[in-house]
Amino acid sequence: MDISITRVEKQGKRPEDSALGFGTIFTDHMFNMDYNPEKGWHNARIEPLHNFSISPATMTLHYGQTIFEGLKAYKTAKGEIQLFRPQENFKRLNSSARGLCIPEIDEAFALEALKELLKVEKEWIPETPGTSLYIRPTVFATDPFLGVRASHTYRYFVLLSPVGAYYAEGFNPVKILISKDHVRAVRGGVGEYKTAGNYAASLLASEKAKEEGYAQVLWLDGVEQKYIEEVGAMNIFFVINDELVTPMLNGSILPGITRNSVLQLGRKWGMKVSERKISIDELAQAHKDGSLTEAFGSGTAAVISPVGEIKYGDNIMHIGDGTPGKLAVKFNEAITNIQYGMAEDTENWIEKL
Amino acid sequence: MDISITRVEKQGKRPEDSALGFGTIFTDHMFNMDYNPEKGWHNARIEPLHNFSISPATMTLHYGQTIFEGLKAYKTAKGEIQLFRPQENFKRLNSSARGLCIPEIDEAFALEALKELLKVEKEWIPETPGTSLYIRPTVFATDPFLGVRASHTYRYFVLLSPVGAYYAEGFNPVKILISKDHVRAVRGGVGEYKTAGNYAASLLASEKAKEEGYAQVLWLDGVEQKYIEEVGAMNIFFVINDELVTPMLNGSILPGITRNSVLQLGRKWGMKVSERKISIDELAQAHKDGSLTEAFGSGTAAVISPVGEIKYGDNIMHIGDGTPGKLAVKFNEAITNIQYGMAEDTENWIEKL
Ligand SMILES: Cc1ncc(COP(=O)(O)O)c(C=O)c1O
Ligand SMILES: Cc1ncc(COP(=O)(O)O)c(C=O)c1O
Repeated sequence: MDISITRVEKQGKRPEDSALGFGTIFTDHMFNMDYNPEKGWHNARIEPLHNFSISPATMTLHYGQTIFEGLKAYKTAKGEIQLFRPQENFKRLNSSARGLCIPEIDEAFALEALKELLKVEKEWIPETPGTSLYIRPTVFATDPFLGVRASHTYRYFVLLSPVGAYYAEGFNPVKILISKDHVRAVRGGVGEYKTAGNYAASLLASEKAKEEGYAQVLWLDGVEQKYIEEVGAMNIFFVINDELVTPMLNGSILPGITRNSVLQLGRKWGMKVSERKISIDELAQAHKDGSLTEAFGSGTAAVISPVGEIKYGDNIMHIGDGTPGKLAVKFNEAITNIQYGMAEDTENWIEKL
Repeated sequence: MDISITRVEKQGKRPEDSALGFGTIFTDHMFNMDYNPEKGWHNARIEPLHNFSISPATMTLHYGQTIFEGLKAYKTAKGEIQLFRPQENFKRLNSSARGLCIPEIDEAFALEALKELLKVEKEWIPETPGTSLYIRPTVFATDPFLGVRASHTYRYFVLLSPVGAYYAEGFNPVKILISKDHVRAVRGGVGEYKTAGNYAASLLASEKAKEEGYAQVLWLDGVEQKYIEEVGAMNIFFVINDELVTPMLNGSILPGITRNSVLQLGRKWGMKVSERKISIDELAQAHKDGSLTEAFGSGTAAVISPVGEIKYGDNIMHIGDGTPGKLAVKFNEAITNIQYGMAEDTENWIEKL
């Protein structure tokens, strides 16, 4: 499919790298493509960023038939532009599409279109270590119809947003709260898909956690409320008796690409690695007897987030000594060094522009 | 709060009552109101129906922070306009608001605004028995921000859509399928709120049911996948040993207003009525021994939907003789007669314009 390109008349100015936050500034152009049953996906185009004009009856507004992805483009010291495992994001987008009755998008074409967009916007990619260009591919239902069914028409779009270093104030351990009252997803539900409603469902528990001074919620499974699943927008890892442990994928956890990368590196480094069920009781016991030495989250936004405290009911578990754990630091450096071209891409994870 | 009114220059033409479907035709005007933290809800206005111009980063598009309601206005034979328990819808809208971290809306004001809108659009309310004006109040998150948190700004709007008789081809029993693979909601989740993501989460199972020739999915609970919850957009009732039974509200079932009305009438009529857990095993047993004599759904769209067949795995349960059950007919008539002003409003359910 051809991609038409319409450029802005006057390029916008990218803010200073030090002034970048997250998710508030968008680049001059976006990618758009439409779907209808007759033509399939069509009218692929790069065009100036603009508002959508949508009917108030647009199905996604009412029934949430929306999926999205999140990945980043990095600029190396030599000025090259790199993507980290973008194929995995488009694969997951299609997995989400199947789960939400949305027509799939050709993965190779989606990657090609993203690269075209990045070529147009290369001035927008910040350069300071830690900064990057956040990429948000999204598909939403566009039929103007009130009634519950899958939409017949869709819009796919890609937004770009230059983002600051996640750890502007240093790579400090965060505190997370295990929710006893709220559940994000359940076996047989849509937890393993990156769909809008999963995030709406997490808001109330997150607000309660914030009120108590915790950065994020650590979710338990929906069935027994006993097994650890994941954190707000990160997967979770524990180091117990020198074993790297993360909850196994079970249908209600998002299969994180950073998670997968950590597992791959851990195995390569000869660590004992396991994906399995971890109950809150096991965690509490491991904390009590001192075998729990580290906890950290993994996700595109922060790569690795060391966890310094986990609260479950009255049990406040401090992990480590207030500084990031050794493995959190090691994984973070290994992955970011590859992303920014400061280390060899031994895993074949990098897609250059 | 004042409500400003801007009228269309030329009124649209309402289709013939016989040509009305569901959810595709909208009236000339809509109600809109905005929220920000400084002003609270403000700028209440009735204005010509128009598309929304929204940033592609609008939070609801990405994180599904949206809630809605569904109710109807009916025209009586005398030409009066009636709403059915609208206070309950605005109460439920606020319950959904609390569950999704959305600022509440003054319920009395919401009702007043709806009445104003209906006065402007009274020509759009169809007259044939069974037809009505469907009302869709909706709130969605409007911050243009990529990052998971509750939005700071919102839009509340009300859309109106003239709709045809639900049972154009007669009040025939439907076939429903119990999903063994999929779960819509779970205890601790957002099932009891009318939020967009719940409907997205139901699509795949619904499509599978349709492929097998079933109209809708009957959901089981997310924890044990054993207890009956509700149907796609209806609550469910069974008549077992002359007792009217419906699943108790447990946090994962939408508290239907039609459900509540059926319970109230059943009690008033001296029936044995119970809200309790009903397992699929109990249902299968009651079907086998003949004590299950009726099943029907309840909801705003169809009021009462008789159920003639329920499939669970290999067990196909036929209920009744292919015609609507006696109680389904009785509840349907009692409620629609009140809605259309053909019976006395003994329950104080009607709000006249
Ligand atoms: C719910 C959830 N879990 C985990 C992750 C981490 O996934 P990834 O490593 O692919 O960014 C994310 C972020 O994308 C997420 O939204
Ligand atoms: C999931 C769900 N359950 C039940 C109902 C029935 O509720 P009500 O009787 O208030 O229309 C609806 C429709 O609103 C619904 O969407």
